[in-house]
Order: sequence, then structure tokens, then C-alpha cells
Amino acid sequence: MLNNTLIVGLGLIGGSLAFDIKSKKLSKHIYALDKDQNTLNTAIEKGVIDGAFKEGVKYDFVIFCNPISTLESVAKNIKEHIKDAVITDVASVKEYPESVLKPIFKERYIGSHPIAGSHKNGFENASKDLFSNRLTIVCPTDISKKDHIEKVKTFWEHIGAKVEIMDAKTHDEIFATTSHLPHLIAYALTKTLPEEYKNYVGQGFLDTTRIGASQSELWTDIFLYNQENVLKSIELFKKQLDTLENAIKDKNKDNLKSMLDEISEKRKNL
Amino acid sequence: MLNNTLIVGLGLIGGSLAFDIKSKKLSKHIYALDKDQNTLNTAIEKGVIDGAFKEGVKYDFVIFCNPISTLESVAKNIKEHIKDAVITDVASVKEYPESVLKPIFKERYIGSHPIAGSHKNGFENASKDLFSNRLTIVCPTDISKKDHIEKVKTFWEHIGAKVEIMDAKTHDEIFATTSHLPHLIAYALTKTLPEEYKNYVGQGFLDTTRIGASQSELWTDIFLYNQENVLKSIELFKKQLDTLENAIKDKNKDNLKSMLDEISEKRKNL
Repeated sequence: MLNNTLIVGLGLIGGSLAFDIKSKKLSKHIYALDKDQNTLNTAIEKGVIDGAFKEGVKYDFVIFCNPISTLESVAKNIKEHIKDAVITDVASVKEYPESVLKPIFKERYIGSHPIAGSHKNGFENASKDLFSNRLTIVCPTDISKKDHIEKVKTFWEHIGAKVEIMDAKTHDEIFATTSHLPHLIAYALTKTLPEEYKNYVGQGFLDTTRIGASQSELWTDIFLYNQENVLKSIELFKKQLDTLENAIKDKNKDNLKSMLDEISEKRKNL
Repeated sequence: MLNNTLIVGLGLIGGSLAFDIKSKKLSKHIYALDKDQNTLNTAIEKGVIDGAFKEGVKYDFVIFCNPISTLESVAKNIKEHIKDAVITDVASVKEYPESVLKPIFKERYIGSHPIAGSHKNGFENASKDLFSNRLTIVCPTDISKKDHIEKVKTFWEHIGAKVEIMDAKTHDEIFATTSHLPHLIAYALTKTLPEEYKNYVGQGFLDTTRIGASQSELWTDIFLYNQENVLKSIELFKKQLDTLENAIKDKNKDNLKSMLDEISEKRKNL
């Protein structure tokens, strides 16, 4: 049980966490910091949080859910007021947050990445149970304290997530391919569609590009803060696309069919 | 009202059409031709068709739903028995079917492409209302008779589809981008995923690759029978991917963000 939890950034993820913490009674009090006073007011009115961030509260758990590009500045602004707290964040990249939050919070920082979300964003789309049965990656640093790691892990388990521990470097390599790449592909495919063809898209195009509607600010950050791994993933994807393209060019039916067979089986097993 | 409708190939599309023709009472009798006797028996038992194809029936409407690569051979095999019928097919490409079916059936052939389907295939996945409110493209040839075109158009409208008339060349150009390209992308992205990462895919990866589970035989045919347009679409996609990749390489945040903004808006309007 937490006493005073602080959520920094009441967007889709921060807001949804607030809903869960409140409904599952994981913290005696929930406070939030957000640049938008209306969002804070709405959250207070809805009873999702108990109040806006204020000095003098003894916070024991802080979750940074604000944009990646503002993690460092906001952390520096409030660090004096969260000296007793275990700190985590929810960014979709983990090396960069560690590089800025570990120097500030030392052994009290442990990264998190809940594998949940939506192409919709903002507190207005926040909801209960967004993380239920979803995977959350927890990334301790080389100096994270064992009981702090346990606290973060237990927090996510109480939220309803399945937790896997991983270092930030491995995380960023894996998620460049499993998450960041498909977003980039969806953006590129959406961009490829000529305006005059838009009445002719079927469910296939729509599903393949669903995440092409994702928030530009968030994804600009993710692509740039995981630049090296994302670029590597793009190269791997291009190689696979070239292989298929060449099979089409060659009109080698057997070869193409056996490739598609194998891929189709692989996809069915995901 | 049709008298004797013949469905060639009782797969997902042929089977679903049989369900609709039967339940909407669009034809006095429905016959089907399929290489699999079990499928025919099942369809007869379910009351979806009245019997297997036989000589001596005066067919007035024939729908080829068999694989693209067998369109020509099957058409030649049965052409003497369907001399009074208006002929259509449901292939996802339209130039090739026209090139083989028009010489056989002359002014009686009109192509169709119902924009509906599934990554699942076969009669066992066939169902009613698959085409309901979906677009069906009808492609007359330069010698199709007006009343035959009307018959095909009316058929699809009675099935519940919205019909648009288009020539086969335009069809194949458009659908290379709106349908064939996303399938190829989904296959390529599925292939890019390393086996050891498969526990880390989220809903984004799953949606983007859903159609990567599509039937290999069907899609091998589609890619090869629409080779030229598909290759052009791949080049257009690669250009868009390169543009995004370069913005990531340049770390030009404003530029990347404004591109993603525009794409995200475009996708929301699909």
C-alpha cells in the first residue's frame, strides 16, 4: 500500500494509472502534476485524483508519464520535493530516461514500460484496466536498490500487469522492432495512399495503418530517442521487403509461395 | 431473380456468396463446382447449395470464385455447359481474369471484385453478410453487353454490396496500393520479427501484421498477376519510408513531427 503517489502527466497512461490506483485502492492519496489545469480539475472532479501536486507532501511513489522530451526538466524542477520517493517512468524507450533520471534520483530510479496504449491520447481517453493482463517491462539500473525494484514490480502487478525485468539497452533493441518499427511502417503506408484512392481502402489497409493515427509528438520522441535501434530495424525490414519484392520480380511462384506460407504460419502463431 | 446460379469454388468468398444467395432467395437453384467433394457434401447438407455442378442444367449466372491461376483452365472445361450464362468472377485482380475469360465468354463476361474477405479462408469460414455494405467493384470489358452489366450490378446490390463500375486497368492500379501493398508490408513486417522477440509484440504489431496471416496461394497469385502495379506501389512506399528514415537520421524533430502530424490527420480521416 502506497501513501502518497504522484503522477506526473495526466495523459492516456497517467490518467489510466490514476483510475486503476484509485479503484484498486493502491495508494492512500493520489496527486498529479499536469501543465493543463483543466485536466487536473476534471480529474479531481471525477475523484480520480485527490489533488494537484503541492510541496510539503511526503511522496513515496512517483510515476513520470509526461512526454519523454520533458522528463529531465520536470524531474529537475520537482526533485527537491520527492526525495523520499521511489521513481519510475512509463516511456516507450528506456535508455534515454535512465540517462537523465538516474543521475537525478540515483538508486531510487527504476524504469517501466507498460505495453499498452492506444492511437488515441489524452486524459479524455484514459480508462480503467488499460494495463490488465498486459506486459509491463521493468528496467532497473545498475544501482537500483533491490527493495525499490520490488516496489515497482509489485506496483505493476497490483495494477494487473504481468511484469518482466530487463535492462534498458535490451528493452530498446527489442521494442525498436516489436513496437517502434510497426508504427513507422504504418505512418509510411498511410503516407503512400494517394488522396484519390481513399474510398478504396479495405479492412486490411485500415488495420495495417491503424497506429498511423498515433500522436505525432509522442512518436517523434520515440523514434529520435531510440534512433540507432529504430534505424537498424528499418534496415532489417527493408531487407525482408526486398526479398519479397525480388521474388515478385522473378515471377518465381514456388519460391514466393513458400516464403508467404512460412510467414503466414509465423503470424498465426503470434 | 436468377434461375440456376453456378458458383465455381466454394471457399470463403464462394461459400459466403452461397449463404447470401440462399438466405436472400436470389436464385431458384444454386449449384457449385469444387475440387473437394467433402466441401460440396457439407454445403448440400447445410442447405447452402442445392447440388453439385452437373451437365444439362440451364445456368443463367456463373460466379468464378476459384483460384486465379485456375480460372482459365476451369472456364475452358465447363464453357460448353454455361453457354447461356452471364459470367463474373471475384478475383482481387481484374486485368488477368479479363484477359483469359473475355476470349472465352465474349460479351457475357463482366469482372467483379468484392472488397471483403478475411485472413481466414475456406468454406469453413464462410458466412452470411460478408459483403453487406462493402464495396464491390464491377469491371465491364469493352464488349460487355449493357443488360449483362446491369445483371451483375443488380446481383451485388441484392447481396447487399455497394457497387462501383470501373475498368480493369484502373482497378488494378488502385488496388495495388490500397490492398495488395498492405498485404506485402504485413508479410514483410511479420518476417522481420526475430523469433525470440515474439513475446514482446503489442496490439500495434498485431494489427499491422494481421493480414500477414493471409493465405499464401491466393496472395502469391495476386502479387504475380498484378506484378507491375504492385512493384510500382512498393517503390512509392519505399520513397515514403526513406523520407521518414532520413528525418530520423537527421534528428530534425520539427520536420519529423510535422510529417507525422500530417500523416496522423490523414489516417484519422480514413
